Amino acid sequence: MSYIIGIDIGGTKISVVLGDERGKIYDKKIITPRLREEARQSITELKNTITLVLHQNKVSISNLLGIGFGVPGQTDPKRGIITSSPNLPGWEGLPLRSSIQSRFKRPVFWDNDANAAAIGEKIFGGGKGFRDFVYITVSTGIGSGIVCNGEIVRGASGNTGEMGHMTIIPGGNKCNCGKRGCLEAYASGTAIAKRARAMIKMGKPTSLTKIYDPSKITCETVSVAAEKGDRLSLDIFQNAGHFLGIGIANIINILNPERIFIGGSVLKGPACFWKSMLEAAKKEAWPIPFKACRIEKTKLGDKVGDLGTIALVVDSLR
Amino acid sequence: MSYIIGIDIGGTKISVVLGDERGKIYDKKIITPRLREEARQSITELKNTITLVLHQNKVSISNLLGIGFGVPGQTDPKRGIITSSPNLPGWEGLPLRSSIQSRFKRPVFWDNDANAAAIGEKIFGGGKGFRDFVYITVSTGIGSGIVCNGEIVRGASGNTGEMGHMTIIPGGNKCNCGKRGCLEAYASGTAIAKRARAMIKMGKPTSLTKIYDPSKITCETVSVAAEKGDRLSLDIFQNAGHFLGIGIANIINILNPERIFIGGSVLKGPACFWKSMLEAAKKEAWPIPFKACRIEKTKLGDKVGDLGTIALVVDSLR
Repeated sequence: MSYIIGIDIGGTKISVVLGDERGKIYDKKIITPRLREEARQSITELKNTITLVLHQNKVSISNLLGIGFGVPGQTDPKRGIITSSPNLPGWEGLPLRSSIQSRFKRPVFWDNDANAAAIGEKIFGGGKGFRDFVYITVSTGIGSGIVCNGEIVRGASGNTGEMGHMTIIPGGNKCNCGKRGCLEAYASGTAIAKRARAMIKMGKPTSLTKIYDPSKITCETVSVAAEKGDRLSLDIFQNAGHFLGIGIANIINILNPERIFIGGSVLKGPACFWKSMLEAAKKEAWPIPFKACRIEKTKLGDKVGDLGTIALVVDSLR
Repeated sequence: MSYIIGIDIGGTKISVVLGDERGKIYDKKIITPRLREEARQSITELKNTITLVLHQNKVSISNLLGIGFGVPGQTDPKRGIITSSPNLPGWEGLPLRSSIQSRFKRPVFWDNDANAAAIGEKIFGGGKGFRDFVYITVSTGIGSGIVCNGEIVRGASGNTGEMGHMTIIPGGNKCNCGKRGCLEAYASGTAIAKRARAMIKMGKPTSLTKIYDPSKITCETVSVAAEKGDRLSLDIFQNAGHFLGIGIANIINILNPERIFIGGSVLKGPACFWKSMLEAAKKEAWPIPFKACRIEKTKLGDKVGDLGTIALVVDSLR
């Protein structure tokens, strides 16, 4: 019996899963990333967690096909390090891949989280059998993984799919990346929360002020208010969906994919988000490539991250 | 000795070339496309021209490796027909590929002109040896051909690379395609001419009014005035370059290519066009993928169209 370890690194948690080639997951442990001067300790904890998972499941290292890393932010795939990740201060340059490789002496594969998720779709999800598709995650930020001619596209430096930083309104809203007018500054969870706070400051009527401390408003609180019928919250989601649709239309016009799969926490928002996304994508895309593309929510749900890191190993060893 | 016939179809001329696998071109004939109810006659003329070229160069059909078609507009690669091409009225649905195939009984390959040009770069031009690059043509319209992982990307329906219709200013300038805010409505030759006419109408001081009949202003006339130092014409090119740079930054953020090659008639304009394109691309792209990408003018020059149709055959037969 062969097993795979998947490591999905996030800003608030690191997930370590034990799975296999068919996408079955046997065990999952969560650890909290240490930050700044403590960051390096996370490597030791990560090694210990892998050892623990293997031990508890009676899996010997020789039965491990490989280990897959899904990593956020900008990474250097050649060296297996994070080069820039605003949500993981202190992690830049940590010898992540090499530490794991030298400890377990099994093949270790590395990709950014959006690429890993796209490979998850390809191997275990809706992307099976499609040559050209894009996986898009809409969460705190917006990222994507691109599959063309049946292969993941990693580009010149492993930084493909940064569609969140596609300029859609030159000189527009300020983005966390420092640029202006990025898609992420209009359609991400961060943008939704920011817009709600700005609207409250402008005195727009909304139930958000009654329920929540305005300074603590997140995309999730706006979503809850929207579900309860708050007009402003609904408008904010509709507006965000509209801009996401423009970004998706641009992807359709450029890449003419057969499928677009969307995942991420913002999709848990009200239905108007999805609806206005579809409307804008249809309006802004060319009719023929729009017709050739189906836009779907990922069927892998919250498992897309974990399955992506497992799939990365499967795909790389094929 | 083996030969290849390349057919580059354009709105004002059809070029038929005789070449070989190494990109040598032995002969070239130009015919004028017939339009509307006469369009079908062009097929007969095309067959006769191919026969003539073969005869004059003493090449027998059995020495033909294949025939490559580079076709403008939206095409159906499965059927080998044009589905929509505003500059070639009457050509929609004409049995182009099948007519040539049944007359010459050699392999006929089909692609849109931007893809063919990208394959030309790959086989004979600057793209040799690169796995990830994009060829962009900036002319009457703006199109592109995308190579990922060493292979041209044709997508779900053969309509990749329509970056001219990427929305960069939602609700902005009207584009020929009917949409608003497309890159093509800001950075193409058509957009440059249109902006010059609009500026003249607004009474902006320019030497254009002294030299030309405003209604006849084209991108070329604006270019000539710019080269002579006309401030307004220079500003118009600079402005168009700026928007092209935004579109290119979006491509860099999404595809992280090693190279971008640019061709097309608008590049013959003043140097400020290229300069402001580069500046905007640098400003709007992510630093790491921007640094990983070199942006160059095509080295194939005006031959990129013809060599593309030849390369299409070489690439397809590999």
